[in-house]
Amino acid sequence: MLPFQLTILLFFLSEIESVVGAVHILDIALHPDFIQNTEAVFNYFVAGEAATMRKTRPVYSHKGTYGHALVIGGAHGKWGAALLASRACLRSGAGLVTAHVGAEGAPFLHNTMPELMVHHDKSNSHFTTLPDLSEYDAICVGPGIGQSEETVRALKLLIQEAKIPLVLDADALNILADNPTWLAFLPKDSILTPHPGEFSRLAGSKLSHFESIEKQREISQKNGIYILLKGAHSSLSFPDGRVLINSTGNPGMASAGMGDSLTGIITGLLASQYSPLEAAALAMFVHGRAGDLALKNHSVESLIASDLIENIGNAFESLSHVK
Amino acid sequence: MLPFQLTILLFFLSEIESVVGAVHILDIALHPDFIQNTEAVFNYFVAGEAATMRKTRPVYSHKGTYGHALVIGGAHGKWGAALLASRACLRSGAGLVTAHVGAEGAPFLHNTMPELMVHHDKSNSHFTTLPDLSEYDAICVGPGIGQSEETVRALKLLIQEAKIPLVLDADALNILADNPTWLAFLPKDSILTPHPGEFSRLAGSKLSHFESIEKQREISQKNGIYILLKGAHSSLSFPDGRVLINSTGNPGMASAGMGDSLTGIITGLLASQYSPLEAAALAMFVHGRAGDLALKNHSVESLIASDLIENIGNAFESLSHVK
Amino acid sequence: MLPFQLTILLFFLSEIESVVGAVHILDIALHPDFIQNTEAVFNYFVAGEAATMRKTRPVYSHKGTYGHALVIGGAHGKWGAALLASRACLRSGAGLVTAHVGAEGAPFLHNTMPELMVHHDKSNSHFTTLPDLSEYDAICVGPGIGQSEETVRALKLLIQEAKIPLVLDADALNILADNPTWLAFLPKDSILTPHPGEFSRLAGSKLSHFESIEKQREISQKNGIYILLKGAHSSLSFPDGRVLINSTGNPGMASAGMGDSLTGIITGLLASQYSPLEAAALAMFVHGRAGDLALKNHSVESLIASDLIENIGNAFESLSHVK
Amino acid sequence: MLPFQLTILLFFLSEIESVVGAVHILDIALHPDFIQNTEAVFNYFVAGEAATMRKTRPVYSHKGTYGHALVIGGAHGKWGAALLASRACLRSGAGLVTAHVGAEGAPFLHNTMPELMVHHDKSNSHFTTLPDLSEYDAICVGPGIGQSEETVRALKLLIQEAKIPLVLDADALNILADNPTWLAFLPKDSILTPHPGEFSRLAGSKLSHFESIEKQREISQKNGIYILLKGAHSSLSFPDGRVLINSTGNPGMASAGMGDSLTGIITGLLASQYSPLEAAALAMFVHGRAGDLALKNHSVESLIASDLIENIGNAFESLSHVK
Repeated sequence: MLPFQLTILLFFLSEIESVVGAVHILDIALHPDFIQNTEAVFNYFVAGEAATMRKTRPVYSHKGTYGHALVIGGAHGKWGAALLASRACLRSGAGLVTAHVGAEGAPFLHNTMPELMVHHDKSNSHFTTLPDLSEYDAICVGPGIGQSEETVRALKLLIQEAKIPLVLDADALNILADNPTWLAFLPKDSILTPHPGEFSRLAGSKLSHFESIEKQREISQKNGIYILLKGAHSSLSFPDGRVLINSTGNPGMASAGMGDSLTGIITGLLASQYSPLEAAALAMFVHGRAGDLALKNHSVESLIASDLIENIGNAFESLSHVK
Repeated sequence: MLPFQLTILLFFLSEIESVVGAVHILDIALHPDFIQNTEAVFNYFVAGEAATMRKTRPVYSHKGTYGHALVIGGAHGKWGAALLASRACLRSGAGLVTAHVGAEGAPFLHNTMPELMVHHDKSNSHFTTLPDLSEYDAICVGPGIGQSEETVRALKLLIQEAKIPLVLDADALNILADNPTWLAFLPKDSILTPHPGEFSRLAGSKLSHFESIEKQREISQKNGIYILLKGAHSSLSFPDGRVLINSTGNPGMASAGMGDSLTGIITGLLASQYSPLEAAALAMFVHGRAGDLALKNHSVESLIASDLIENIGNAFESLSHVK
Repeated sequence: MLPFQLTILLFFLSEIESVVGAVHILDIALHPDFIQNTEAVFNYFVAGEAATMRKTRPVYSHKGTYGHALVIGGAHGKWGAALLASRACLRSGAGLVTAHVGAEGAPFLHNTMPELMVHHDKSNSHFTTLPDLSEYDAICVGPGIGQSEETVRALKLLIQEAKIPLVLDADALNILADNPTWLAFLPKDSILTPHPGEFSRLAGSKLSHFESIEKQREISQKNGIYILLKGAHSSLSFPDGRVLINSTGNPGMASAGMGDSLTGIITGLLASQYSPLEAAALAMFVHGRAGDLALKNHSVESLIASDLIENIGNAFESLSHVK
Repeated sequence: MLPFQLTILLFFLSEIESVVGAVHILDIALHPDFIQNTEAVFNYFVAGEAATMRKTRPVYSHKGTYGHALVIGGAHGKWGAALLASRACLRSGAGLVTAHVGAEGAPFLHNTMPELMVHHDKSNSHFTTLPDLSEYDAICVGPGIGQSEETVRALKLLIQEAKIPLVLDADALNILADNPTWLAFLPKDSILTPHPGEFSRLAGSKLSHFESIEKQREISQKNGIYILLKGAHSSLSFPDGRVLINSTGNPGMASAGMGDSLTGIITGLLASQYSPLEAAALAMFVHGRAGDLALKNHSVESLIASDLIENIGNAFESLSHVK
């Protein structure tokens, strides 16, 4: 983690992309203690820090050790979102994953990932009812769920009932934006993963990249939540006001389902005993790294979310070799 | 792009295949200015030109930058055509892809490509109704749609309503051939991708290869559209009368679904901000190159469209190394 | 093709496996003319001969050149047989493949191979009605069809109506065994692919391997058909009494669906303009070779039919390097 | 197989993991005869012993030689368990595999593994009726079946009717735990594969690892069955009181469906003429080895059961190179 004195936040702002070339960080021999002890607001999150966060698995651990994750996603026409999030979740360390979907979507999950369990919503087509939450160690909601009235009600109930941090993405964020008072009721340490469009709706107005990051910090601090603002350099704001800027990823990831995958990775890490801070930060890094590694066999045009998911293991492994 | 003075159109005509061996183009040191400034009607489209057309992705682009493509395809018994076109489209740079299919076909798309969104036609079995076209940046229609009366009407409506160039293939072309007056109503710069049989129907009579190319130019110019006549050396005619002859591809591509894949690639490029000229030309090249690269792990007998689609990324990447 | 003077039929008989070690064929410098001109009944079919049979694809060929194959297979609980045969067929050179199945089975084909077209039987669960046969250049029937009364009638009708050689396998052979008079009505040059159990039923009694081969020749000659008796050393008998003994394959191929794959390969070659003799012989070789090549990434225990099918291209390619 | 004098059971007990480092076995030059003739209760099961157990396939074997396996698994929401067990079974040498599932689950099996045959239970959603058992050479039951009243009755009937050893896993074990008197009625040499939680229920109380192994031996001896207690070092107890401790596997295998895969491997070996002792021991080793080999392209976080299954062949092959 490099405090931002070493680089400059400016370099990561989309507004000035056209005038900034590639950024290289030179070692100017600052004393390590100085770096560690400097309470920087902005830190550049690099492989070394991600590697430190990654946990070793004890030999005698078992699938219970790594928790049971619940993925609430999908709706008529958008079932794939639930699958991508579930698959990424299982590929990121969860011991068990259950997808909660409308009955129409259940076969697509069964057909494409036998390791998943599937829980049927009472609705055929979308998210309207809650499963028994007590069985789960991590919960994400949002990819592909749409914004029907019943789904809005179900999401409200989920926020009320959840006793653990939630991961909220996509339409869950759009619903939040329509109901901004709910933010204050989110379980402490919940993680929100908006893309810039979703964040604008959350923030209530279209902001510059620089303004967005300030607003992001403000919402995080006010509500005690993590916000991962996705983009070329994703920024992750903590409840204490600090911000990590991500160092991985590429423009080939501007493709359907990439966000669903990130949601799944965070949830998989949460299920397997990572703290919300660690889960959000490590997932952000691993997601981008997986996208970078997937490019080896693809091009920026051809890269799709499934390619990234199949490289999650390689991305984790790449951290084994960081000095 | 080599003007055809350098090779000879004759060499690429199927009628004389038996008497022409492999064609090698020798550099006779024509001055580059001469080549560039010569207004050749026929040009041989090679890797260097394709590489020039390929766009770099800006770092701060996102999935909205690359557009939302609509694929209208499939009918009872032929749903795979919609999948192949959609998959090729997403593998060719579209940010989002929605497949519009009869309800019977929706599960097959959900089961095989979670990155897709699926929009249901009111008919269970075939294309009869239009989705809201305003959401889409590129639209293709035709693979596997059949020629039922309702589909004919829906296609007519699509041609009337579309405000952007359409990509028309397969049964959409057969319907056009039955309704030749519609040609004049196609959105400007639409792209038609007939194989020789479909082109004969469009042209109204069976023609020699040479006559076909002349007729192809004529229809393009008269209607302000691009026509990509598929074959061993595909020819792409422009509204201004020029013709590109393709330099990639192999006889292993004489297999089901290869045309659907091409349609998808063109549409993916259109969605991601390529002009119709660029989309048609680059897709033609990349499609053949992907087929050539796929052959490395297959034989001319075993090659199938899915193999080609999985090599689209390699085909794009191969353009990175063109000097 | 080595006439059997060079090896000895005995070596290939299962009865004496325990006393025969590995067979190596030494070159004793027989004059090639002698070998070629010797009218041997039994010939050992090796890579050189298979390579000679393989056809080059002309540059200007297209998917029509390689024909449209019809695969009639599958029934309730056994739909995979139709898929394996269809997939092997498309991987073996057919330009188009249509699978004719009960409606219950159609989704499984659509979900797993988008390149296929699917034609629905009037029955939901099994083969009872014929599609229009005039559209097809090659037809196989049998894998997984069961032996219901309606299927027996449909098979009889198929044999009556077919104007081209049929490929018959599995339950089609069991039905033939129950109706031995039908043998005489098979289209000339049809190809039967029994395993030893099916052949015993066809022959009307359990025979030794040696007796089987004699009986196989007799049935072939009497009915003007090819019989490919599957086994460790498959034997292919011609209508003129000659027999080829296959040189490829391994015990890992003793697994579900391997026969369905062979049926598909034969049909793919027939569709793409191979004669029945060439299609049966080359398919026999390629099938075993594909199984051998698939073993490189598997073990005899783990090998499954899908692995073999994915190596059909490698098997064909291996013939490019035969001197 | 190393008698446990050479290592120490203690080293493999989870209770003391924190104080034991990596265990290396030094060769102290005990005479081989001493090792072989020592009647050790505990033996460490290593590659050399596994390699000795593995059978060579005779050239003239065929799919009948390797038997027909029946997999009874899956229920509403948990159909993937049936697929994983069936797939592992076919990848472990069974000639034919039939999955017996509720009708709701049948499509998922057909869609994902065409080599399988599927038999429908009379219930749509779970296991309630028996197929004709006489057709099968090996039977496993349990993965994902749930514990509904009807399933309990069906399992009881299966235990009564089966004339061959059964493989029982997952919910079949939970049902056994609720009905401990049934243990005595299990077919001789049946194989139970509990994880520690399931074993605790079977044993009637939560036990330390050391106590579990003692209890495991006791139940095996009393009921004439094999028990494979899964964990970091799986232990396999024989009816005669001996115990094998497994030497393969890794913490990445703490993931959904890994147990289902093991059940399938045992059943595949049983079908293909391995004795229950050999099937249980070799499957235990191969399962862990396949998991170890799968890690080469994955990380402990990303490893899923399907990865392991795709490495079963590599695991078997690794035994070819053991001296």
